[in-house]
Amino acid sequence: MVQRFAFTTAAMAAALEETPVTYEELADIEREFDDVETEIIRQQVQLTRPLYEKRHKTVSQIPNFWPLVIEQAPPDIDEYIQPSDSALLLSSLTSLSVSHFEIENGGTGDPRSVAIRWEFSENDYFEDRVIEKKFWYRRSKDGWAGLVSEPVDIKWKKGKDLTGGLLSMVKAVWDEEQAMEKSGTKDKSAHLIEKQRTLRKKIENTGLGGVSFFAWFGFRGKRVSAEESRLAIEKENGKRQLRQNGVDTTQAEQDDEEDEDEEEEDDDLEIFPEGDSLAVTITEDLWPGAIKYFTQAQEQDALSDDDFESDEDIDEEEPKARSPEERPTKKRKA
Amino acid sequence: MVQRFAFTTAAMAAALEETPVTYEELADIEREFDDVETEIIRQQVQLTRPLYEKRHKTVSQIPNFWPLVIEQAPPDIDEYIQPSDSALLLSSLTSLSVSHFEIENGGTGDPRSVAIRWEFSENDYFEDRVIEKKFWYRRSKDGWAGLVSEPVDIKWKKGKDLTGGLLSMVKAVWDEEQAMEKSGTKDKSAHLIEKQRTLRKKIENTGLGGVSFFAWFGFRGKRVSAEESRLAIEKENGKRQLRQNGVDTTQAEQDDEEDEDEEEEDDDLEIFPEGDSLAVTITEDLWPGAIKYFTQAQEQDALSDDDFESDEDIDEEEPKARSPEERPTKKRKA
Repeated sequence: MVQRFAFTTAAMAAALEETPVTYEELADIEREFDDVETEIIRQQVQLTRPLYEKRHKTVSQIPNFWPLVIEQAPPDIDEYIQPSDSALLLSSLTSLSVSHFEIENGGTGDPRSVAIRWEFSENDYFEDRVIEKKFWYRRSKDGWAGLVSEPVDIKWKKGKDLTGGLLSMVKAVWDEEQAMEKSGTKDKSAHLIEKQRTLRKKIENTGLGGVSFFAWFGFRGKRVSAEESRLAIEKENGKRQLRQNGVDTTQAEQDDEEDEDEEEEDDDLEIFPEGDSLAVTITEDLWPGAIKYFTQAQEQDALSDDDFESDEDIDEEEPKARSPEERPTKKRKA
Repeated sequence: MVQRFAFTTAAMAAALEETPVTYEELADIEREFDDVETEIIRQQVQLTRPLYEKRHKTVSQIPNFWPLVIEQAPPDIDEYIQPSDSALLLSSLTSLSVSHFEIENGGTGDPRSVAIRWEFSENDYFEDRVIEKKFWYRRSKDGWAGLVSEPVDIKWKKGKDLTGGLLSMVKAVWDEEQAMEKSGTKDKSAHLIEKQRTLRKKIENTGLGGVSFFAWFGFRGKRVSAEESRLAIEKENGKRQLRQNGVDTTQAEQDDEEDEDEEEEDDDLEIFPEGDSLAVTITEDLWPGAIKYFTQAQEQDALSDDDFESDEDIDEEEPKARSPEERPTKKRKA
């Protein structure tokens, strides 16, 4: 609705105040749904694994399969690909794969954790043949849950760094922070503070829109260690159990909220703030939909040959057509 | 990528021509994925049923739960809700539910078929208390698969029809077509032709953007009967079996394609072309995410009270923020 009907402030305000239902009850229902969803993802990964292997074998025989998929990537991914990223990806990407590494080889971790692996042929931009980025699904003690990651550096050839040095800086800061944590040091060294300041400045100067897709490899996300996550899940399950037995856990919640303020987060050191969303879109859309996107590319190519109107064909995919002439043929997303 | 790198026409063109892989091989892999996905949806429906029942019991105690959810609906739904639709939905919607009716009560149909049921309190707009729209997942003989539906009429009160008579016209045309089919008549009556012409004209005059959300109840989709779908699935499975045994089915494919032209479709009688997509978005996003959207509405309300800046809060949800200050907290979509 373009012009929104202002209703919120009137009768609907604070709907929960007028009922015996609490936020925690709603949150517990959501958690039960989450548990079921997690189990379903686990089954899905098992059931589709042989199919993905079969697909891999088949598409390896098709030259430029993955570049063609990338070319047809949905807007949620495409918006992050700059022209120079595109040149690199389309000329050199040889394979892309997503694995749910925490449940591979009998692992019993979270099926929502993913590793996204990019393989490249020899190219003018960097030395790497394989760049893999891992995302861990974790829960923080303040109740947040989602994907976190670690910066992955790229060995750029001289003068070819598409991130203009940003990625390496993020990695260097990260490494120094890790070393600090490992040694148990509480206070940042002057060296680290200076490094962080420089990075922060560089991020500010780079601005929002024009960052390279490859900056995504620098995404860190919220700082939640495996240990913090384990404890948070344990605690949450304990409280859920109590609530199911009719115990009021409101006081415990409030204590936890007070704890939150202690944490110091370096959010401003993030060079790709939407990195986790992008990982989810790759995992849930690009990866399962690869053949669909490839076929689209082929069809578009056939159209271009016929009509000499390749620009218009490309434009068509973005806006949602709402013309009555267009028959809806959208296949249901799985 | 704003400026797209033109690569398609060069080395990548017709990637399939350079390999032993055929379109049919890729399509068969996709069909195997579809089969697995269908099984997974079936399991998901079974596993989440008790949770949805529990949720229903809980949210029934919250006044305006569903209006608040609708208010926070994602852009894919929101874009179809006009201000007057909004007034009606926010004041009178008492319940919304999605059921996978082909697998309810021991049914063995397609788990992707859905019935979307809207319940309303007494209101100024129409007499109905319940309006339910069903979508059947079907396969046509030309290989298309997706959701089809039937127009559902609404008993509007005098002068209150938000679709301006469109919905009733679609329903009347549909009924007459059905009667014709039932009686086995091949040629349209002059009466039906005239009715269709009038509807077509009305759709043209109404234009694209401003149609009421309630026109969605008039969505028909592709004409695929249960019988056609059953035969198409049977035939497709047969051909798949043959290909798995190494038989070339190319000739059979071509014969089928020639059959396609026979059909006469009345696509221009569709008053809500994206009706199937909208059904999918309601099923896969609004329905499972209802508590999330409700909680958002509550939080936004709290913010408005604090800041007296409700307009800005509302604006925030739409565009994807890409500022480095914003920490990504998007929870993974299940």
